[in-house]
Amino acid sequence: MPYVNIKVAGSLTREQKAKIAAEVTDTLERIANKPKSYTYITFEEVKGENWAVAGDLLDSD
Amino acid sequence: MPYVNIKVAGSLTREQKAKIAAEVTDTLERIANKPKSYTYITFEEVKGENWAVAGDLLDSD
Amino acid sequence: MPYVNIKVAGSLTREQKAKIAAEVTDTLERIANKPKSYTYITFEEVKGENWAVAGDLLDSD
Amino acid sequence: MPYVNIKVAGSLTREQKAKIAAEVTDTLERIANKPKSYTYITFEEVKGENWAVAGDLLDSD
Amino acid sequence: MPYVNIKVAGSLTREQKAKIAAEVTDTLERIANKPKSYTYITFEEVKGENWAVAGDLLDSD
Amino acid sequence: MPYVNIKVAGSLTREQKAKIAAEVTDTLERIANKPKSYTYITFEEVKGENWAVAGDLLDSD
Repeated sequence: MPYVNIKVAGSLTREQKAKIAAEVTDTLERIANKPKSYTYITFEEVKGENWAVAGDLLDSD
Repeated sequence: MPYVNIKVAGSLTREQKAKIAAEVTDTLERIANKPKSYTYITFEEVKGENWAVAGDLLDSD
Repeated sequence: MPYVNIKVAGSLTREQKAKIAAEVTDTLERIANKPKSYTYITFEEVKGENWAVAGDLLDSD
Repeated sequence: MPYVNIKVAGSLTREQKAKIAAEVTDTLERIANKPKSYTYITFEEVKGENWAVAGDLLDSD
Repeated sequence: MPYVNIKVAGSLTREQKAKIAAEVTDTLERIANKPKSYTYITFEEVKGENWAVAGDLLDSD
Repeated sequence: MPYVNIKVAGSLTREQKAKIAAEVTDTLERIANKPKSYTYITFEEVKGENWAVAGDLLDSD
C-alpha cells in the first residue's frame, strides 16, 4: 500500500508524469515487493511563487 | 486537534464537500472525543493527469 | 481514489481507529460515490510536544 | 534539511509569501542551526470551499 | 526542487530505502531534468494499525 | 486557518520546537493577519535513514 506524493517546482508534461509514475511504481515493486496495483501516486506542480529555497521564492529576481 | 487532509481524484461539488466535512467532524467527535471546533479538514481535488494507480495516470486511455 | 490522512494530537486506541476508518470510508462511498476498496486512510498520532496551537506546544504548562 | 509546508485558507500576496519564507527560514537557522540553503518551503492557498472548521466549510453562510 | 514523500504500510530495510531513493532521484533527473542534488525524499513506514483500505485496518483479522 | 507542517532531519529539543512554534505563529500573524489561535503547527523529526538528498540517505557513510 504505498502512497507517494511528488511535488515539483514548475510544471511537468503529461508524458513526463506518465513516465515518472510508471518508473516509480516499478521501483516499488522490484525493490520493496509492492504489487503495482497497490501504489497510488499524486503529483503537485507548484509555481515558483509558492516554493522557497534558502528563504527566497523561486521566481525571485 | 485533528487535522484531516482528503485527496480525491476528480472533483466534488460544494454540497458533497460540505456533507463530507460535517460527517467526518462528527465521526471524530463521537469516536475520539475531539470537540468539533478543533477539527480542520482540507480537500484537494486532483485531476486524473496528476494521479496514478498501478503505474498509469487515471486519465490514460 | 481517495487518500485521507488523519493527524490527531495524542493517541487513539486500535478500536477508535478501526471505527473512524470504517465511518470515513462509508462517508466517501455514500456522499462521493467512491468505492470502498479505493479508499486509503492513514493515521498519525502526534505527541503534544510536536503539535502547537496559538504558538504553544500542546504539552505546555 | 527542513521541509516546511504552509497551508492557508484564502490567498496571500507574493510579498506576504516572500516575507514569510524569509522569516521562517531565518527562524530555522537561528533556533535549529539549519543552514538557509537547506530549507524548502511550499505554500498552498486553499479556497474557503476546500477548508472546513467545526464541520463547516469556511465559505458557508 | 522536487520533494517526494513515500509512505508504505509496514517497514523497509535500510537497503531497500537506499535503493528506492537512488532510483527515484535518478528517474526525476532523467525524465524531468531535475538535478539530483535538488531532490529531497522522505520515507514514512506506517504500521498496519495506522493504515486502512476499504474501511479495514491492515492488521485486521 | 493556517496549518504548518515542519519536517526536519534529525531531532529537535522541546525548547527548540517551542521557540520555532512561537516565532512561526507570530510571523503568520504579523505578515498575513492570521490570529494566533487559528494556527496549527506539527513537527516531524525524521531520522537520517528516512531522508534522502541527491539520492543518498542522510546517514550514508
